[in-house]
Amino acid sequence: MNLDRTNLDVPDVAHLLRSCDALADLARQETLKWFRTPGLAADNKERDGFDPVTAADRASESAMRAYLAQHHPDDGILGEEFDPVDSRSGLTWVLDPIDGTRAFLSGTPCWGVLIALTDAQGPFLGVIDQPYLGERFVGGLGEARLHGPHGTTALQTRATRELAQAILFTTFPEIGTPAERAAFARVQGRALLTRFGMDCYAYALLAAGHIDLVIEAGLNPYDIAAPLAVIEAAGGVVTDWQGGPAGGGGQVIAAANAELHAQAIALLAE
Amino acid sequence: MNLDRTNLDVPDVAHLLRSCDALADLARQETLKWFRTPGLAADNKERDGFDPVTAADRASESAMRAYLAQHHPDDGILGEEFDPVDSRSGLTWVLDPIDGTRAFLSGTPCWGVLIALTDAQGPFLGVIDQPYLGERFVGGLGEARLHGPHGTTALQTRATRELAQAILFTTFPEIGTPAERAAFARVQGRALLTRFGMDCYAYALLAAGHIDLVIEAGLNPYDIAAPLAVIEAAGGVVTDWQGGPAGGGGQVIAAANAELHAQAIALLAE
Repeated sequence: MNLDRTNLDVPDVAHLLRSCDALADLARQETLKWFRTPGLAADNKERDGFDPVTAADRASESAMRAYLAQHHPDDGILGEEFDPVDSRSGLTWVLDPIDGTRAFLSGTPCWGVLIALTDAQGPFLGVIDQPYLGERFVGGLGEARLHGPHGTTALQTRATRELAQAILFTTFPEIGTPAERAAFARVQGRALLTRFGMDCYAYALLAAGHIDLVIEAGLNPYDIAAPLAVIEAAGGVVTDWQGGPAGGGGQVIAAANAELHAQAIALLAE
Repeated sequence: MNLDRTNLDVPDVAHLLRSCDALADLARQETLKWFRTPGLAADNKERDGFDPVTAADRASESAMRAYLAQHHPDDGILGEEFDPVDSRSGLTWVLDPIDGTRAFLSGTPCWGVLIALTDAQGPFLGVIDQPYLGERFVGGLGEARLHGPHGTTALQTRATRELAQAILFTTFPEIGTPAERAAFARVQGRALLTRFGMDCYAYALLAAGHIDLVIEAGLNPYDIAAPLAVIEAAGGVVTDWQGGPAGGGGQVIAAANAELHAQAIALLAE
């Protein structure tokens, strides 16, 4: 059990991994009650003030918070939908109950539930769960695995060394300032191919060794904590655009390996 | 059995639907042999001249062609990967063994297998199959159904009447001429939200009532034949940007209903 967290009195690893599964199971159950249901469309919000996507988001996060209150009462919680809970243990759970609400609203299977565990050094355990597909990407505390409908496989990032061979994903052109979009375009111009609009699922694909780069901007901490832990556990590199810690959100780059990461941040910085 | 094809001596409907399933099963089997396998990456093509995505494409189409040669020897075939087969029956099968090869290459679950049956009036039976998800969208000859991992449901397009409430999907910004992108942008500016990069899966979402519009350009006939049949069977409208037949490809708009279609083509024509 290599915890890579020597300064912390970290609780039992198996217990934490079980809690990750329990949290993801609860979120899966809550989100699938709403996904692809009639009337999920945004115009409901206009008509009667009820927004079913927000309802799904809150139901998912509430279920996870209730579990944590019972099983990890001393840990903090940072979630998208409700106020933070202070940590007494030094550990904080970071929750995004539905990452990609527009994808969720549109019925695509590329949104996800994000669960991460952080300490003072940042995220060290993460889950990217896709409830409709039944895929769960788990990374950290010695784990790096996809549990899915076609079995369980090890997560390992790709060995692509040249940007000209790299597959790049992003939520651009929907996000970012003009300057950020221009920086992104410099990398896009050198990559093999670029795909758009996958939200957190792009990070899962990177951890699983199918793509090479994800570049985004304007992220919140709960958007990146779980992807960061999963990708680092799979051998990748996640930083901000200056090469510093990415756990705070903002401008984020995830790369399959250090060589690609160096090539991409050089272009982002130009 | 309303065939809507009074001028043709149409073979038994159940037989055609069984053949659609058999073809989609074969394509599912062949494509899943390659999807998400190590070494699927495009750089293999550079290294030794072998392109596994093309191999998957051809294996999938070859398996379907072999079935048709045995069970429908008088029907024509129009497929992406091999030469056309002339029709002696008046019917032609239109095959795209992997629509969205870049999605396939990237490991996303949003590519598909497209199978359509056409006569002189155009496509009248279509299948959009997503092998990894195990989802099969079938429309035509009285059928309009999704068979998936969470059961079987009827396909029915949404009732959204206003563009301001519509969810728009597209493969833009990756496709089209500058003029086409400008026309697209006029519709995008009025829509509730726009999502990118879903390939044929966007048409499936439209048929299933999750989104409202798909607008694309530069399509081939085999890209649109199956989506057209599935969406029309589900109550939607599919034409070119001038409101004419879309079966030939090129500029295509698919809408959940006639009202939305009229609003969108007026903007495209400006």
